[in-house]
Amino acid sequence: MTRAQLAASTGLARSTVAARVDVLMRLGLVTPYGDARSTGGRPPSLLAVNPAARVVLGVDLGATHARAAIADLSGELLAEERADLEIAEGPDVVLAWVETVAHRLLEQAQRPITDLAAIGVGLPGPVEHSTGRAINPPIMPGWDRYDVPAHVQQAFPVPVLIDNDVNIMALGEQHAQFPTARDLVFIKASTGIGAGIIAGGELQRGAQGTAGDVGHIRVGRPSDALCRCGNIGCLEAVAAGPAIARALQAAGKPVRDTADLVRQVRAGDVDAIQAVRQAGRDLGDVLAMVVNFINPSVVVVGGALASTGEHFVAGIREVVYQRSLPLATEHLRIVTSVTGERSGVLGAAAMAIGHVLSPEAIEQASLELTS
Amino acid sequence: MTRAQLAASTGLARSTVAARVDVLMRLGLVTPYGDARSTGGRPPSLLAVNPAARVVLGVDLGATHARAAIADLSGELLAEERADLEIAEGPDVVLAWVETVAHRLLEQAQRPITDLAAIGVGLPGPVEHSTGRAINPPIMPGWDRYDVPAHVQQAFPVPVLIDNDVNIMALGEQHAQFPTARDLVFIKASTGIGAGIIAGGELQRGAQGTAGDVGHIRVGRPSDALCRCGNIGCLEAVAAGPAIARALQAAGKPVRDTADLVRQVRAGDVDAIQAVRQAGRDLGDVLAMVVNFINPSVVVVGGALASTGEHFVAGIREVVYQRSLPLATEHLRIVTSVTGERSGVLGAAAMAIGHVLSPEAIEQASLELTS
Repeated sequence: MTRAQLAASTGLARSTVAARVDVLMRLGLVTPYGDARSTGGRPPSLLAVNPAARVVLGVDLGATHARAAIADLSGELLAEERADLEIAEGPDVVLAWVETVAHRLLEQAQRPITDLAAIGVGLPGPVEHSTGRAINPPIMPGWDRYDVPAHVQQAFPVPVLIDNDVNIMALGEQHAQFPTARDLVFIKASTGIGAGIIAGGELQRGAQGTAGDVGHIRVGRPSDALCRCGNIGCLEAVAAGPAIARALQAAGKPVRDTADLVRQVRAGDVDAIQAVRQAGRDLGDVLAMVVNFINPSVVVVGGALASTGEHFVAGIREVVYQRSLPLATEHLRIVTSVTGERSGVLGAAAMAIGHVLSPEAIEQASLELTS
Repeated sequence: MTRAQLAASTGLARSTVAARVDVLMRLGLVTPYGDARSTGGRPPSLLAVNPAARVVLGVDLGATHARAAIADLSGELLAEERADLEIAEGPDVVLAWVETVAHRLLEQAQRPITDLAAIGVGLPGPVEHSTGRAINPPIMPGWDRYDVPAHVQQAFPVPVLIDNDVNIMALGEQHAQFPTARDLVFIKASTGIGAGIIAGGELQRGAQGTAGDVGHIRVGRPSDALCRCGNIGCLEAVAAGPAIARALQAAGKPVRDTADLVRQVRAGDVDAIQAVRQAGRDLGDVLAMVVNFINPSVVVVGGALASTGEHFVAGIREVVYQRSLPLATEHLRIVTSVTGERSGVLGAAAMAIGHVLSPEAIEQASLELTS
């Protein structure tokens, strides 16, 4: 766009647009782009966002894996690395891995460390986003209330944003697949079941940061399955991987764990397929409520159970379309994750990019320019 | 605050703060306020928001009543009027009432029409907020897709914002009772059951504007109650006023309608009290899911059933504290509406105020100043 087009489309004064464009150009975030068609006199300059101006680091830390990537400001991954790494090794070991890999990825992407503008990190447990600390995380010994940003900033003095894994996966799916969706729910169904909620274009964390905790909502069909939370009939107690595996075991079927269950479904085992489809229906029962309540345009289903193919999602759709209001499902898409194992790292990068391009960060950067 | 304090607390440059304060003072939205303590030299000016600068009109149109009020920019009501008015009379009759009453209220508040900055209107049906039109409203003959803002703007050439009644009631409760709550759910339980959702500080309408439609979520206990939506066991089919009245009638108890039910509960009728308490439990079953999902800090219960006293809310609390996650309920407040019949008109005014004080509206007003 030209400055005049920006003024017309934003309603801002031309002098305001000129001043703001000047700041963005000095920060390298906006660059001239060819020439607009002249309307007589000097041709007005076309401007474009410059995604190559800076890079961010996205880090996805799971229970037993770690993934990191350098991305440009459009979210495109420039270099990426994955490792088997136990989060239970504790912050010193895991964050040392992050630091080493970050330097290696910057080198691969041929970008100096001064190009790094921010870092986003996903952790496999409850996180206090405002302080970047995990709070009472069940599977993360040594991480409780550990100051992750302060540790990372010793090596990289840039803003560091932390969130839980399901929230960053929701961001990753939105950025990579549904950039115009303002209301999106991401469901991770694996050894546990959790949701990331984007409503009104913003990730919603709730008053205590527990928003999206759908694993302990009671399913519709009568169930006396005891849940680790102490209640009975929770979604996680009937439809997560371990619950399905236990039910198959009880019926005399040898299924070791969630990964084994996924293998058996993919191999075409009828009992395993039926069990996963029923788990889809149970999840659908909860999602029908979610769809009525928050009215998303997209529900993305990810996690190990989503990788079993269409059986799981078919069960979900069956119940959601039966139980949700027609107006809420008229344009609703229920899809499996396309980014798969990359959704976390894409979302962590997206969280960092969102910060770099925020009005507050740009105002701060422009102050640093002039001082 | 002084300009220096504003610069320190926002991180904006002092020149930026000075320029923005200048605009706000020229618009009358900010005024000098006494003098700050001197730190040597000329004392810096203290500034304060000036709620008297402009006024807004809030209008709450229900099925059989209408209420309108003039409020200042702090949301304080300066003049108010209520009438029995059927929404089914159609837009010409109802909006003529709004126009007449608006002039009368401005006169009572001793404010010229040029002081009116915006109008907020709540309608008792589904609304497309972006266009200000009711869409297929079941109890509003003549209103389907009617352009309410265009009609109102013939008399008052200011921005006109429209939303459904439950959404504006949620805004009204937030502004009047919980101004710091960023995650609040308002439940209206009366002849129907609906919710207004404030998440991350913003009213959430969802992709199709149906967010908060909790009346057709299935309750936990087995029920074969047929709902008008075609499903069975919906919350509205077991816990709304008419459903409770029908159940009492079936048990040989003469209860005419929701108003009669409320009277009997207040008169201490044990059967009516038990029925309302069970309805509270059924609503609690759905709210337990809502609390896990969106993690609000406050749930406000309003509508006719909430006016039966503590019996209804006691049933809600009983189930929510049993079924929701401890972390999500640790600081949760479940309260009955304090603003009562005024929540709609307070929220309609708050919606208008939110627009008047938005950066976009202030930018627009400042452009009009300079042109």
